[in-house]
Amino acid sequence: MAADLPDQALELRSLVTSQGTLELSLHDVPVPSPAANEVLVRVEASPVNPSDLGLLIAGADMSAATVAGTPEHPVVTAPIPDGALAGLSTRIDTPLPVGNEAAGTVVAAGSSPTAQALLGNTVAIAGGAMYTQYRAVDASACLVLPDGATAKDGASSFVNPLTALGMLETMRKEGHCALVHTAAASNLGQMLVKLCIADEVPLVNIVRKAEQDTLLRSLGAVHVCNSSAPSFSADLAKALTATSATIGFDATGGGTLASQILSGMEQAASATATAYSRYGSAVHKQVYIYGGLDSGPTVLTRNYGMAWGVGGWLLTPFLQSIGAERFAALRARVAAELTTTFASTYTREVSLAGLLQPDSFHAYVKRATGEKFLVTPSQPVP
Amino acid sequence: MAADLPDQALELRSLVTSQGTLELSLHDVPVPSPAANEVLVRVEASPVNPSDLGLLIAGADMSAATVAGTPEHPVVTAPIPDGALAGLSTRIDTPLPVGNEAAGTVVAAGSSPTAQALLGNTVAIAGGAMYTQYRAVDASACLVLPDGATAKDGASSFVNPLTALGMLETMRKEGHCALVHTAAASNLGQMLVKLCIADEVPLVNIVRKAEQDTLLRSLGAVHVCNSSAPSFSADLAKALTATSATIGFDATGGGTLASQILSGMEQAASATATAYSRYGSAVHKQVYIYGGLDSGPTVLTRNYGMAWGVGGWLLTPFLQSIGAERFAALRARVAAELTTTFASTYTREVSLAGLLQPDSFHAYVKRATGEKFLVTPSQPVP
Repeated sequence: MAADLPDQALELRSLVTSQGTLELSLHDVPVPSPAANEVLVRVEASPVNPSDLGLLIAGADMSAATVAGTPEHPVVTAPIPDGALAGLSTRIDTPLPVGNEAAGTVVAAGSSPTAQALLGNTVAIAGGAMYTQYRAVDASACLVLPDGATAKDGASSFVNPLTALGMLETMRKEGHCALVHTAAASNLGQMLVKLCIADEVPLVNIVRKAEQDTLLRSLGAVHVCNSSAPSFSADLAKALTATSATIGFDATGGGTLASQILSGMEQAASATATAYSRYGSAVHKQVYIYGGLDSGPTVLTRNYGMAWGVGGWLLTPFLQSIGAERFAALRARVAAELTTTFASTYTREVSLAGLLQPDSFHAYVKRATGEKFLVTPSQPVP
Repeated sequence: MAADLPDQALELRSLVTSQGTLELSLHDVPVPSPAANEVLVRVEASPVNPSDLGLLIAGADMSAATVAGTPEHPVVTAPIPDGALAGLSTRIDTPLPVGNEAAGTVVAAGSSPTAQALLGNTVAIAGGAMYTQYRAVDASACLVLPDGATAKDGASSFVNPLTALGMLETMRKEGHCALVHTAAASNLGQMLVKLCIADEVPLVNIVRKAEQDTLLRSLGAVHVCNSSAPSFSADLAKALTATSATIGFDATGGGTLASQILSGMEQAASATATAYSRYGSAVHKQVYIYGGLDSGPTVLTRNYGMAWGVGGWLLTPFLQSIGAERFAALRARVAAELTTTFASTYTREVSLAGLLQPDSFHAYVKRATGEKFLVTPSQPVP
């Protein structure tokens, strides 16, 4: 261990008790020693993604949360509704680390040449347990950031960029040539707009507010439909006809939006039909649900024939499906376009302790598009 | 044309008018002359399948239907609700023939040897416009029934048998090893029970009534779950655990049944889990909707992780996807097992005119499991 490293560091843990209580706290954990092919990363920046919140919050009612403990070691307690507790049985009474991805400086390295070569580099890492001050990871899992890129630049270089790239990969693999995206003003959505412009893929963006429409058009988006507008159905059908998009990725999950997209695709596919087809168009229409901003049920009206599908889409199995070589190519593209196509913006920066303060968690549990937290575990508390 | 054939014959037509009215009537049409490679089939038996009703009824409110015309040429008129009319624009003012499949005797043949060889045979045919007295079809489309099989035996030899076989083909192609079927006491469901026993494929049957449970068990079904029973969720989870079924075919479409099946599959997949997985099991769970006995929306609760899919399944594109050779093999199996595995039963036999009488259409529009009509176009009217 390098002489200037502490023995102990802070790590955030999320605990679900058998009494139905969520407890968020900071644990003092030993700073790990890297194995031969591992490096030790001082975690400097880690985003709060919607995909972190399930593990962190566990369905608890954060509006009823209370904070105790000390400023350095706050302890948040919140009740978990009975319905949510049923699906959590395998995590009860085990404090779980949280945080999908991060970036930081390699401050120690194992004996292998690959690990040693990373010393002093700023790297992006993924794999969970990132809401901590020091994280040991396999050297091969590090993405070295390009010269001049900061940890903040690289903090969100895994989940959102690879999800955006994964959507395009899935689109091509399944034989579609244009796509639809909901919650399109998110950091991910903005990346997708830039990516689709670069790759010349027609994209239909669905947003909920007029200012999000303006934002996306300022990035070059051509098709933006505001689901709050009275003309939404007609706008969507028009954009789908113009793009021939037959695959969509939906971050909301609940409600009728996925079904509305399928209806619009069917309208577009049938626009040129001259003969009656009782089973609808033969064009396969697909919506993948990759998030759950609306946790209510998905409601499908099925007024789009028989050639349709709805299903879950998840990054990790997708990446496993494409093979190591293609995965490496996608990550290399992320690194090359880190501060352009794949740039993220944050509205708040907080320490680990700051993440457990009411004015933080009342904000990030809203999953509001356009609001994004960055955790900076290495900054002084709080 | 053979000397004993009439010049004219009756054909049922379904007309949607621009005023939003359904009109069902019998047209006098010329008896067709077969082309070189065609045969002329005297249609003796044709089933009323749920898949015929969309084209026949067009969403009209049959409880408000009135019958005019003569006993030989009844005319049924019924109002179509505004919501249903929107999807019917391409069929307005065009009287459409109806009837997916049938069987009968080859009474005339074109000049080709293939066509001539079929003269006098009892054959099964498919392809629409079967609610007629004489139908010309390509000789290659005829399935010659085995010795001793009647037209009634062969009337339902296409839609239901190939759908049952298609479910098993789809199951295998997508890597599943057991399946779930809803509305399982239907003619199709009974075939599937016998087919799965023959092929040693574990099958979970979902029915709605206790007597349907008894019926399927009498055929040898092992897993039958009654969705009306208070213990349904537990029964389903138990059957899914016992069979490891991860694909289902749902004839109901609307409501929560597809979602309940996915939940049960997830419970079965998670039963052996020891560690918490925030995204649910990695086992892909699939439900295909192939019918719409419940025309209401499909409601998905999404409490089954991210590895799931729901979609439409339709026989014709499936058959196109498997290629001519495999299709021929499946039809040959149907012929070989026509009066055993693929036997159908009917509760009512009616003429073409009889199909347009209130006591008929009030019954078959209910799509009641266990009730099935056979049309016998060649029998004297009414």
